[in-house]
Amino acid sequence: MQYRRLGQSGLQLSALSLGAWATFGSRIGRGEARELVAAAWDHGINFFDNAEGYAHGDAERIMGDVIGDLRLPRDGYCVSSKVYFGSAAEPRPTQRGLSRKHVRDACHAALRRLRVDYLDLFFCHRPDPDTPVAETVWAMDTLIRQGKVLYWGTSEWPAERVMEAADLARKHRLHPPTMEQPEYNLLHRRRVELEYAPLYGELGLGTTVWSPLGSGLLTGKYNDGIADDSRLGQPAYAWLRELLLEDTSRLERARAFTALASELGVAPAPLAIAWCLRNPHVSTVLTGASRVSQLLENLQALELLERVDTSAWRRIEAVTRER
Amino acid sequence: MQYRRLGQSGLQLSALSLGAWATFGSRIGRGEARELVAAAWDHGINFFDNAEGYAHGDAERIMGDVIGDLRLPRDGYCVSSKVYFGSAAEPRPTQRGLSRKHVRDACHAALRRLRVDYLDLFFCHRPDPDTPVAETVWAMDTLIRQGKVLYWGTSEWPAERVMEAADLARKHRLHPPTMEQPEYNLLHRRRVELEYAPLYGELGLGTTVWSPLGSGLLTGKYNDGIADDSRLGQPAYAWLRELLLEDTSRLERARAFTALASELGVAPAPLAIAWCLRNPHVSTVLTGASRVSQLLENLQALELLERVDTSAWRRIEAVTRER
Amino acid sequence: MQYRRLGQSGLQLSALSLGAWATFGSRIGRGEARELVAAAWDHGINFFDNAEGYAHGDAERIMGDVIGDLRLPRDGYCVSSKVYFGSAAEPRPTQRGLSRKHVRDACHAALRRLRVDYLDLFFCHRPDPDTPVAETVWAMDTLIRQGKVLYWGTSEWPAERVMEAADLARKHRLHPPTMEQPEYNLLHRRRVELEYAPLYGELGLGTTVWSPLGSGLLTGKYNDGIADDSRLGQPAYAWLRELLLEDTSRLERARAFTALASELGVAPAPLAIAWCLRNPHVSTVLTGASRVSQLLENLQALELLERVDTSAWRRIEAVTRER
Amino acid sequence: MQYRRLGQSGLQLSALSLGAWATFGSRIGRGEARELVAAAWDHGINFFDNAEGYAHGDAERIMGDVIGDLRLPRDGYCVSSKVYFGSAAEPRPTQRGLSRKHVRDACHAALRRLRVDYLDLFFCHRPDPDTPVAETVWAMDTLIRQGKVLYWGTSEWPAERVMEAADLARKHRLHPPTMEQPEYNLLHRRRVELEYAPLYGELGLGTTVWSPLGSGLLTGKYNDGIADDSRLGQPAYAWLRELLLEDTSRLERARAFTALASELGVAPAPLAIAWCLRNPHVSTVLTGASRVSQLLENLQALELLERVDTSAWRRIEAVTRER
Repeated sequence: MQYRRLGQSGLQLSALSLGAWATFGSRIGRGEARELVAAAWDHGINFFDNAEGYAHGDAERIMGDVIGDLRLPRDGYCVSSKVYFGSAAEPRPTQRGLSRKHVRDACHAALRRLRVDYLDLFFCHRPDPDTPVAETVWAMDTLIRQGKVLYWGTSEWPAERVMEAADLARKHRLHPPTMEQPEYNLLHRRRVELEYAPLYGELGLGTTVWSPLGSGLLTGKYNDGIADDSRLGQPAYAWLRELLLEDTSRLERARAFTALASELGVAPAPLAIAWCLRNPHVSTVLTGASRVSQLLENLQALELLERVDTSAWRRIEAVTRER
Repeated sequence: MQYRRLGQSGLQLSALSLGAWATFGSRIGRGEARELVAAAWDHGINFFDNAEGYAHGDAERIMGDVIGDLRLPRDGYCVSSKVYFGSAAEPRPTQRGLSRKHVRDACHAALRRLRVDYLDLFFCHRPDPDTPVAETVWAMDTLIRQGKVLYWGTSEWPAERVMEAADLARKHRLHPPTMEQPEYNLLHRRRVELEYAPLYGELGLGTTVWSPLGSGLLTGKYNDGIADDSRLGQPAYAWLRELLLEDTSRLERARAFTALASELGVAPAPLAIAWCLRNPHVSTVLTGASRVSQLLENLQALELLERVDTSAWRRIEAVTRER
Repeated sequence: MQYRRLGQSGLQLSALSLGAWATFGSRIGRGEARELVAAAWDHGINFFDNAEGYAHGDAERIMGDVIGDLRLPRDGYCVSSKVYFGSAAEPRPTQRGLSRKHVRDACHAALRRLRVDYLDLFFCHRPDPDTPVAETVWAMDTLIRQGKVLYWGTSEWPAERVMEAADLARKHRLHPPTMEQPEYNLLHRRRVELEYAPLYGELGLGTTVWSPLGSGLLTGKYNDGIADDSRLGQPAYAWLRELLLEDTSRLERARAFTALASELGVAPAPLAIAWCLRNPHVSTVLTGASRVSQLLENLQALELLERVDTSAWRRIEAVTRER
Repeated sequence: MQYRRLGQSGLQLSALSLGAWATFGSRIGRGEARELVAAAWDHGINFFDNAEGYAHGDAERIMGDVIGDLRLPRDGYCVSSKVYFGSAAEPRPTQRGLSRKHVRDACHAALRRLRVDYLDLFFCHRPDPDTPVAETVWAMDTLIRQGKVLYWGTSEWPAERVMEAADLARKHRLHPPTMEQPEYNLLHRRRVELEYAPLYGELGLGTTVWSPLGSGLLTGKYNDGIADDSRLGQPAYAWLRELLLEDTSRLERARAFTALASELGVAPAPLAIAWCLRNPHVSTVLTGASRVSQLLENLQALELLERVDTSAWRRIEAVTRER
């Protein structure tokens, strides 16, 4: 396994990480989750990503049980949570958002569900227009000083809001945000490559990117339409399906990518992940594998990163370029 | 239910809240308190207001028992306490006021009585001329950093003292006050509307207003004098009775208001509450209902807020104007 | 009882307080200590002074047991400790002084002996030439933020060292010292009246003065020499005896004072205490009474403060003036 | 025993201290460790040095058990740990280094192994090029404010990195480093005497020096080669053996020193230790004695410090000077 620093911080994360989104507590049960975590750990993955909102807290409960069961050494792995969406099916107003109250409550609830003393990473899952950034920065700093959180960050925040948080932290001598969790893949590049560009140098921001396979499009499995038993075929993901298909150029670019992968003789999924890892500002790529076989395939990305040559990467860029 | 931010903070309070003053532990017992809290919660009320001084701590003890009993989710409701008057019948000098000692002791005692880990809101119930504001601000900040209090504020402080506290907090990088709890109703408007005016913009101050019914005058129940079995008829409230009747214009204005309410075909109590809610600087209105039926009537304020038209509001202002 | 603010802080101490020095754990046992504390409390005394060094910690152990036994309400009384001399008979180097280690250890040990969660007042019993003032100020501030100490101060520090501590606190935004515990009586006035003069206004310093009776000289009991069964007659106090008798003018002035008290028809002890209380910079006077009868006599100081007229005070000043 | 302040701090350490490196948990077992600690304590030694990396944590486990067993008073002795190398045989990336995560985890693990509530001294065992100094300084400061560490410092850091840490601490109002643990002996002087020279005055840095005997060379035991049953003869120390023998001038200078010691009629080991103690910037010298007899011999350094005259010291300097 390759390890990378989380931005300019001292935390070393595995280049590939295991995310719980849309799998733990929904598409897979405790048994499969345990096999996944065990396999990930055995292959050197040391970051397990989660959020209060994944499966209404069940994703964290299962992950906490599995990690506890496997007796992984607490200092050897990192676990995250995210605050914003709440874990209740119909959250009351104080059960979501980034107020001091919910940041505090969400942290404590995640600690209980994950069965740990501290969260390694704690993300603001979205910006909250109804809470001043200063209130959230203070709340995060308090949790860090209390030893309940090590590094705090954001997910899908506009660059200027991240900058505002960092400026406030500097001014009040509080802990600044350390990382962002943005979507990043061949079909969705702008935010990571352009919008956040100033943040890497100025703040030393790290990124833990999600959706490296473009919600599955880059595996080629939707090349011929969306099967009912696929993730995107499920009613719960109708919103995501529509979003993806709205822009038909995305599916075309995905088809071109998978055709090229086939020509190069490599599996498209690890190739798409390897492409993410070529960006030095990516600290780790989250994979949402639901089966061990998938995870193992994704791990081939590390070899591809060495093996695929420059001209091939150039062709990949060319066929997936936005038009 | 409508929810509003507590000033510019990220905390969302229900527009109507349930206060324990003069009811919990005095006029109503555990059974009625339980029914009240349950009904309030079912109708979306998420803030339960209390103070060390209400019924010498019994108001908090009962509220804590009732909330614990009903198993309300801790992250879904807010509870407050206030420090200043002490809970002892005859407090020793260190058992009241805003010294670091009493702020600390009062917080811990309220946590025990209310059976919670933290107070959402903690108020300085009155200004304490014998304690420097800086000492109180430091003490509140320490409680916030220890996770025992989320937001601190004041109650019935002169505007310049609130401003002094905020300035000290800014200078020393401490948590500033977030809210005030002033009296506010059709017969008592000056402080909220004029004195505090600069605080809303500059400090983002929220208000949790009390006595929306003018100690009952605006319900019309004292239009023909004070019955012995009413709250104001009780010996313990003699001081309040005298204060109210001193200024006879208040009773006249209250009579004019209730007459107009009758003409408009609406109950006077929810109308008086709705009037408070028309002020955007009011974060929540506390109701001191002692029966569920009263609470339900008060909740009609939310509809009235939509239904009553501008000309009616203008007439209400006209008949209640101070002369 | 009269109560006074501890300097400009918000803490209200009784004008007379009970000290444990040279009595608790040495000249009196648990039973007498219990009677003394009970009588003091019944007469409104709310401050019980102690130190790690008094009777090698036994003074604190006995006081803690007695207060616990009497079930005094924690928010109604104040208790102090002092760090510097250590509690061991032959302290190891880290078991004394004002290093961060000993400040921390001494606080925790005092909390255990006194059976409380926090110390109201915590004094640096002497300046420590081998520890930078900054280290001690930081250590005290940390204890305050942890909720283990409320107010910290010094005892018998030169004025400029107190000022240095306050300056450091201001510069680093730490809690400054709140009080001093100096010797003060008719025969020993310079430090409180002259040396500390600038500290009252600039820092709002309070004082908890000790030895109001000049080690007993002002009671007249040594007018005719030192009896073997008196405190000064005991071998352990040989050092103090010598110190007092060295300067023979002190005994002469004490004789003049007691003669005048007799002429005025009042007991000399409460008169000497009342004299201390006439100084508005004295927050409280510690009495080291070893019997309830003595304590009651001392408490007469409060009446004398009202009763004795200006001309009498002038005569007292005249006969005790240093020559 | 002689005691010295740790730099300009208020902590008093014995001039000689007992280190656990290369003995506890490797060359000696619990029984011998217990005898060593007991003898050290009886002779006034009050500092026991350790690190997470010594014998993979066993050195700390044994020391904790032994100190607990002997019931040494917690306020009478100091114990240290060091973070950087990890305690696992093959540490995962987050199980070593100076990231906030490992600093926190290492501290908690050391507290458990040593069976104490706080570490007196906590060292960064080496500089970590992959962690910003600021992250480590904040992490150490947080541990100090939480009461888990008293003084933090570094070991074998370049002077400019120590200065950078102190500057950051000053700027952010955090606790600066208090001490360094460098190698120091007659054969290895440059860092302590030249490189660190500016740090003593500007930062008040203290030093807890290790290897006063030059890995044994200055005892003369390797004068005629390295025996298989000596420390340097063991396979695990092959790296150290090679390092020492690489520079043959070291062995020559060691031979000259032991010859001179013999001429002076004193044992070479305590003489080499006494030489270290002549440097006023040395706060304490660590001895890694593995037998009580060795410890007792080392303790003779204190007498030699008084007894050996200036001309003898000059001759020692002359024969050991680097060429």
